[in-house]
Amino acid sequence: MRIARFSVAEQVAFGVVDGDPDAGTASVTALKGHPFGPFELSTARFPLGDVRLLAPVLPSKVVAIGKNYADHAREMGSEPPAEPVVFLKPSTSVVGPGDPIVLPRLSDEVHHEAELAVVIGRLSREVPVERALETVLGYTCANDVTARDLQRTDGQWTRAKGFDSFCPLGPWVVTGLDAADLAVECRVDGELRQHGRTRDLLRGVAELISYVTAVMTLLPGDVLLTGTPAGVGPLHAGAQVAVTIEGIGTLTNRVVAA
Amino acid sequence: MRIARFSVAEQVAFGVVDGDPDAGTASVTALKGHPFGPFELSTARFPLGDVRLLAPVLPSKVVAIGKNYADHAREMGSEPPAEPVVFLKPSTSVVGPGDPIVLPRLSDEVHHEAELAVVIGRLSREVPVERALETVLGYTCANDVTARDLQRTDGQWTRAKGFDSFCPLGPWVVTGLDAADLAVECRVDGELRQHGRTRDLLRGVAELISYVTAVMTLLPGDVLLTGTPAGVGPLHAGAQVAVTIEGIGTLTNRVVAA
Repeated sequence: MRIARFSVAEQVAFGVVDGDPDAGTASVTALKGHPFGPFELSTARFPLGDVRLLAPVLPSKVVAIGKNYADHAREMGSEPPAEPVVFLKPSTSVVGPGDPIVLPRLSDEVHHEAELAVVIGRLSREVPVERALETVLGYTCANDVTARDLQRTDGQWTRAKGFDSFCPLGPWVVTGLDAADLAVECRVDGELRQHGRTRDLLRGVAELISYVTAVMTLLPGDVLLTGTPAGVGPLHAGAQVAVTIEGIGTLTNRVVAA
Repeated sequence: MRIARFSVAEQVAFGVVDGDPDAGTASVTALKGHPFGPFELSTARFPLGDVRLLAPVLPSKVVAIGKNYADHAREMGSEPPAEPVVFLKPSTSVVGPGDPIVLPRLSDEVHHEAELAVVIGRLSREVPVERALETVLGYTCANDVTARDLQRTDGQWTRAKGFDSFCPLGPWVVTGLDAADLAVECRVDGELRQHGRTRDLLRGVAELISYVTAVMTLLPGDVLLTGTPAGVGPLHAGAQVAVTIEGIGTLTNRVVAA
């Protein structure tokens, strides 16, 4: 099932997407309430092209993992870390499909990082690995946009990863997906820049959920970014950047100057 | 004015504290609504001892500054940084006055860090220094509890600073306070461990607000921690840790094992 969040006629709702978006036959049916528990569909149904898709969740926090593909760790000049590198992106960095990524005046080197995003479905604390997948509502695409120059100089990655618009999410959350071996791709103006597979994650989804919830409670709608494969590179004003994940879809954003 | 958040008879409200808490004559009068705009008092008034004080705000994010007093930077073995060190603590780390600080099993060295906390009053983005204090609702006490061992080994400070209960805030937000030269103290079981003054902040409140909002939008209720003076040290199970800031009051928490 594909769960989107959308606005239409100044209303905002979660909804279930049916049909084939690529063929132009998709529609979205609004949910009554939210998807973090049993829900019913309403009778409000719209052609997908008539609504504006929003970030599919409003996370209280975005927890992200650095250097979780060996090939990306090496292109960053380091060996894969012994322990997962955990950092936070603020909720104010989240934007949706089609929203602009704004290049900040403070950076001259903003990079794309295509990532599988895990959307947490329930309050989760100290979850053992073997039960971790029970906490997952589903998966979406993310772009962990990064000011690489500030990342190099700052020590802490909060500024580099935390600018407004630096966490595009979408286009929807796919439930019931096996995330063990999905293709993760990034294209800039149609050109393939990143191509990895989630089977190459150094720490898989279940292990990461267990690792993070040993520290902090995750809430429904919180997002866990699982790391990016090799091929990160610069984004310039005017570019279109698209993150595609097998079984989910494509998250497209354009890049604009501040 | 002192603005608290409290629960009584299973209701939660913001309220204004009057009288002298130390003399036992204080009371709290509930607000209608929230303090992030014009508000009225209700007729619901309670002796302060009859309510449970909660964290005075529920921040969407806590933005914190590292090494912002020269004496603390030196005790950490480094010179004061050329630029402010910015990091995030998750909202799930926030607790209130009297709540326990839980020592995580993953650390053997948990430290107190007494800090002046700025509570943001309005949506704030790219605020110039000269207008930054207009964005402040008021000030409260914070304890930026830190797993020092993980801070040393992790590189990113997210785990070390991000455990549940690692951000006590309180006891209330004081409005109309000049924060330029306030005593900031920390006592553990009555013994003075930290004593600094905000005049020794390497970057003052206005400069920090401007610096942070050049990166990320701050929302009403968001909290900015301004850094800790020298004297940080370990907390052991059973201890009482108290952060006192001149003109605000004292935030007390006990330390418990996981």
